[in-house]
Amino acid sequence: MIGLSKETKEKWEKFVELINTALDVFLPCEKEEPQELYKAMRYAVFSGGKRLRPTLTLATAEILGLDPKIVLPQACAIEMIHTFTLVHDDLPDIDNDDFRRGRPTVHKVFGNDIAILAGDALFACAFKTALRGSLSDEKKIKILKEITNALCYKGVIEGQVADIRSTRKKPTLEDMLFIHTHKTGKLIEASVMVGVLASDVDGEVQGYFRKFGKNIGLAFQIKDDLLDAYGEEEKVGKKLRKDFNKASAVVILGKEKAEEMMFKLVEEAKENLRKAVGDRGKFLEEMADFIINRES
Amino acid sequence: MIGLSKETKEKWEKFVELINTALDVFLPCEKEEPQELYKAMRYAVFSGGKRLRPTLTLATAEILGLDPKIVLPQACAIEMIHTFTLVHDDLPDIDNDDFRRGRPTVHKVFGNDIAILAGDALFACAFKTALRGSLSDEKKIKILKEITNALCYKGVIEGQVADIRSTRKKPTLEDMLFIHTHKTGKLIEASVMVGVLASDVDGEVQGYFRKFGKNIGLAFQIKDDLLDAYGEEEKVGKKLRKDFNKASAVVILGKEKAEEMMFKLVEEAKENLRKAVGDRGKFLEEMADFIINRES
Repeated sequence: MIGLSKETKEKWEKFVELINTALDVFLPCEKEEPQELYKAMRYAVFSGGKRLRPTLTLATAEILGLDPKIVLPQACAIEMIHTFTLVHDDLPDIDNDDFRRGRPTVHKVFGNDIAILAGDALFACAFKTALRGSLSDEKKIKILKEITNALCYKGVIEGQVADIRSTRKKPTLEDMLFIHTHKTGKLIEASVMVGVLASDVDGEVQGYFRKFGKNIGLAFQIKDDLLDAYGEEEKVGKKLRKDFNKASAVVILGKEKAEEMMFKLVEEAKENLRKAVGDRGKFLEEMADFIINRES
Repeated sequence: MIGLSKETKEKWEKFVELINTALDVFLPCEKEEPQELYKAMRYAVFSGGKRLRPTLTLATAEILGLDPKIVLPQACAIEMIHTFTLVHDDLPDIDNDDFRRGRPTVHKVFGNDIAILAGDALFACAFKTALRGSLSDEKKIKILKEITNALCYKGVIEGQVADIRSTRKKPTLEDMLFIHTHKTGKLIEASVMVGVLASDVDGEVQGYFRKFGKNIGLAFQIKDDLLDAYGEEEKVGKKLRKDFNKASAVVILGKEKAEEMMFKLVEEAKENLRKAVGDRGKFLEEMADFIINRES
């Protein structure tokens, strides 16, 4: 993975292995009935993703002195929620995307009905999974509040609604910032915060981490806009040049200013991280850089 | 409401008032943006339903000595989940229903995209709501486990998948029982159990209540099948005679045997309730009778 030190690359791979093993345990077995549903859920989840969100959770927990395994169920819950939003967003009635990560989308393989229900089932399974593990009930409740706040009133879903409606009139910078911070940013912010909430750090440190999560979340979506405008379709694995009539940072700010904003966000993110944990945040700093240097 | 004593009718109406007031507080305000989303959520929730499920929760809690208000957030969460399943089931890609409770379905009014996302938002809002209130974290976690188990692996969603696939081959009695106990029964059972789990009753009493919930859940769906086959469209408020090629108890057992099964289920339910709480369960007994005597 581009620009990562050997140490960070290896650690990330170890986290991904841990996450994939756990997801395999937490998801229903595809040999059971209704096979169609369970196959669709697993097809969506096991699609070669980078596991960015749950890795943020595990890494944050580890930096704060925890065994990352303790927050594995909650990290996997976030990945399931992320996947559920992708499955529903790709539907013909919403973004109508045929490809995702280089493969046909869930509804292309399993039909629209199963795609809707597999999304719902992943959502339900996410909450079921977030209740598992050995964290205290108090911490689980705090984490669930963080996750549900990231989703609704105002969260990912409001961001998605604003996004699909952004083609109706020329979106402003303000519209774009609302969409990006909600549709994409909120769940990335929550991924970091779930790791934080599993620990016992005080409110000040929590605040630095929240700022870190917020900033890399927004930077992530600006990078997505840049990839949509200038990336290579084969590398990105989905249809590009689709967002010119949407609230894209590239359309609203232009390439140069969008990049400038993105770099500034990540610099600020890293500064906050340093205030929280000094130089112990190297892994997360490199993840932040990766987010804006990736090619897919 | 048919066959209810004056006392039970008044109590039910009071519960409904309490539930509606709370739902109004827990749901996002429709004057806020994105208005379209919030209007769709509220249109789906405030459609003149009988609030059967949350009423079961509040009544159960009250019978077990609690102030029913303590479990109001969790009862409302169940109603939101019930509503979310209806919104998604009605979609053109699934059951393709144009009417529900005598009004156009959510996608007919707001479009398929908003209907999908309003369903998702209701689901998210349900979990957000279930985390509210003054129950202990331990009880909230137990309740959330009950609710998520009712939904997935094996729950409501598996029941719905089996239902939409039941037209592919002639369904057996076993298929019908799986679909009915999961698609409809699980959430009704959970509605009772959430009231139980808010209290401190022991495992034996919990078992009686679970049996009560299971039985009235299955009886409820058999009654739905009877209404589909023999009910009046105007009273029921949706298109009837739709289930002849599906796993309907009427088709599989015939009218007489379906009714017999339904009556037996409710008798057994009431016996279990009496074992749990003696004659303090009058309200729930009348609700059980109402379920099989209703005309809509």
